This record gives sequence, structure tokens and C-alpha cells, in this order.
Amino acid sequence: MDAKRLESQLAFIREIDKIKGIARQSLLFDGSRFENDAEHSWTVCVMALVLAEYSNEKVDLGRVIQMLLVHDVVEVDSGDTFLYAPERDSAAVADREERAARRIFGILGEDQGRPLLETWLEFEARETAEARFAAVLDRLEPLLQNYANSGFTWKKHGIRSSQVVERNAHIAEGSAELWDYARGLIEESVKRGYLAE
Amino acid sequence: MDAKRLESQLAFIREIDKIKGIARQSLLFDGSRFENDAEHSWTVCVMALVLAEYSNEKVDLGRVIQMLLVHDVVEVDSGDTFLYAPERDSAAVADREERAARRIFGILGEDQGRPLLETWLEFEARETAEARFAAVLDRLEPLLQNYANSGFTWKKHGIRSSQVVERNAHIAEGSAELWDYARGLIEESVKRGYLAE
Repeated sequence: MDAKRLESQLAFIREIDKIKGIARQSLLFDGSRFENDAEHSWTVCVMALVLAEYSNEKVDLGRVIQMLLVHDVVEVDSGDTFLYAPERDSAAVADREERAARRIFGILGEDQGRPLLETWLEFEARETAEARFAAVLDRLEPLLQNYANSGFTWKKHGIRSSQVVERNAHIAEGSAELWDYARGLIEESVKRGYLAE
Repeated sequence: MDAKRLESQLAFIREIDKIKGIARQSLLFDGSRFENDAEHSWTVCVMALVLAEYSNEKVDLGRVIQMLLVHDVVEVDSGDTFLYAPERDSAAVADREERAARRIFGILGEDQGRPLLETWLEFEARETAEARFAAVLDRLEPLLQNYANSGFTWKKHGIRSSQVVERNAHIAEGSAELWDYARGLIEESVKRGYLAE
């Protein structure tokens, strides 16, 4: 066994453990507290397992799950950028996250770090069937959480339904069925006063 | 789309979300607080991804990860049983956990719930290469956490090194190399006073 290699692998595990301290903007389903990035990552992986049948395209489920396992590790350096933050799609955020990905996956040897960096870049680019479906789950989870918590995050930040539709519309590219369902939730949220018209 | 089916799938996701409120006995690597079951599940999945090369036998990594994603959901009903608790291997705990598994996976339709129940039973039985390797990661994570936190959990519960060796020895069945590494950590922990002789 190559002791130095194993130490690098365990250093990577310890480094990404920090996402357990990175709070998201959404509450857990029971509303008790904010979810952290590690918990979110676990949930979207289980969602992939259970909801795979709704993908528009046939996907390699193992690759979807690998993508979702590591999609948020960059937030160790860059923090969580709120979905509705104005800077969300900026080059500055993209650049900061890519630098973080290179540093963090770089803790591993090239033979492992490179494929994981490519997996992360694939998720970000949303140009493959797996990345499109992974993005569905990444967006659907906070929608479900907000609906379960009477629109907590939407109300807190004064988000309007048109913003929710605009920011989540790419769910349709990965799953027309789940986008139909999500649009129903958004409409119902407006009716119930969880979300501003 | 079968609306009732999707509602069952989402009810399952909401139900297992409760493991985010189930604290384990080990601290996060940074020692800031106890880890919960969802965070643990995420970490052992990433460990599977990064440490697969140390499995004694060739494994289907996708199946290892599926097993690890759901291995702790029974704790929604049964709670976390401490590794060193006297009742850990009792028929009563096994029975309670199996009833929990049947109830929780039973929220899903038979076509999805049955295979997930079988995956969970396979993990518990440790009779396949995938289950043996999944068990390695389930045991290795708290060892690493305890070492990183100067033996916090061992000291708190007065655990001795012979107990740690006995309870973790089956790591060798899944990975001789990681068991060698773990034994080194245990010995070093005794030397440093993290763990009683």
C-alpha cells in the first residue's frame, strides 16, 4: 500500500467534511433548522435513486449519483450562493467555484482528482443527460422544502413566483414530468400565500 | 404520470429526512458537534468513491453506494445504537431495525421498496463483496473521527483498545489494507492516550 496516497485520500475526505458547516437557505422538511450542504447532497442522491424513472433521457444512474455526491464540495472555499442572488450567474462566482474545485480535487492524486474535477465540470455545464437530470434534483429539493415550510425562504427574501419559474425552468430539460409537478407546487404556493404572485 | 406513485416517492424522501435529526456518537472531523446520520451517510458514500481500490474483492461501486445511501434510514424508527453498546448485536435490535426497514421502504411501491429492502438486508448480512466493503467504510469513518478528535467518544464511554479491535475487526474481511491502516491508528491512539490499553 502507498501510504502517501492513502493519506491524500483521507485528507480529501477531511477537507470536504467542512461542507457540514455550510448552511443553505432552505429549512429541513420538518422546519427545525437550515439544511447544510452535506445533508442536501445525501438527499439529492437518494432522490436520484428513487426518481430516476422521470428523467427525459436514459441516464447512467451511478454517474448521476457520483455527480451529486461531489457537486457542492466547492462551497468549502466559495460558500453557498443563494439561488436568487443577483450574482448567482456571474463570471466571478463561476471563476471562484472553479478555482475551488481545482484546489479541492487536487488534494487527490491526478488519477482520481482529474476525473472528479471533470465530473464536477460536467455537472456545472449541464450538457449531458446525467448532468441535466442531476440538476433537476438539485433544484427540486429546495422547492419541496419551501412548499413543506409554507414558503419560508421565499417569504424571507421576498421572492416572486416569476423568479421561481425562471430560476427552475431548466428542470424541464432533465424531466418534463417533474417540471409539471414543480409548476403545480409553485401555483399552489401562490394560492396559499407561500409565494408572491 | 402516476400522481399517487410520485406522492409516495416524495413521502419516502420526507420520511427519511428525519435521520438529519439523529445524532451519532462521533464528532465531525473539526470536533464542532456530533455528526448526524445523513451527514455520515454522505461521507461514507464519498469514501466508497475514493477508497474503492482497497476492497479485497472486485465490487460493483454503484451497488456499494446505493447500500450506503440507505443503510441508516431504519434509525428513523429505531434510533442510533452505539457500536459499543451491550445490546448492539442483540436479536431485539435486529428485529426492531428490520421492522423499521419494512415500514420505511414500504412507503414506496413494491417495485421500488422491495429491492431497497433487499439492499438493506444485504448490507446487514455482510455476505456479499459489496456489503463487506460498505461495512468497511461504515466502521472506518468513526475510527478516523475519533482519532482526529483525540479519542473523544472512546474517552467519554471508557472504551478500551481491545473493544475497538474486536468491534472493527471485520474491516479486514472487506479490506485487508484498510484494516492494517486502522490497526495502526488504534495503536497510535493508545500511545497518545486517546484510547485505554
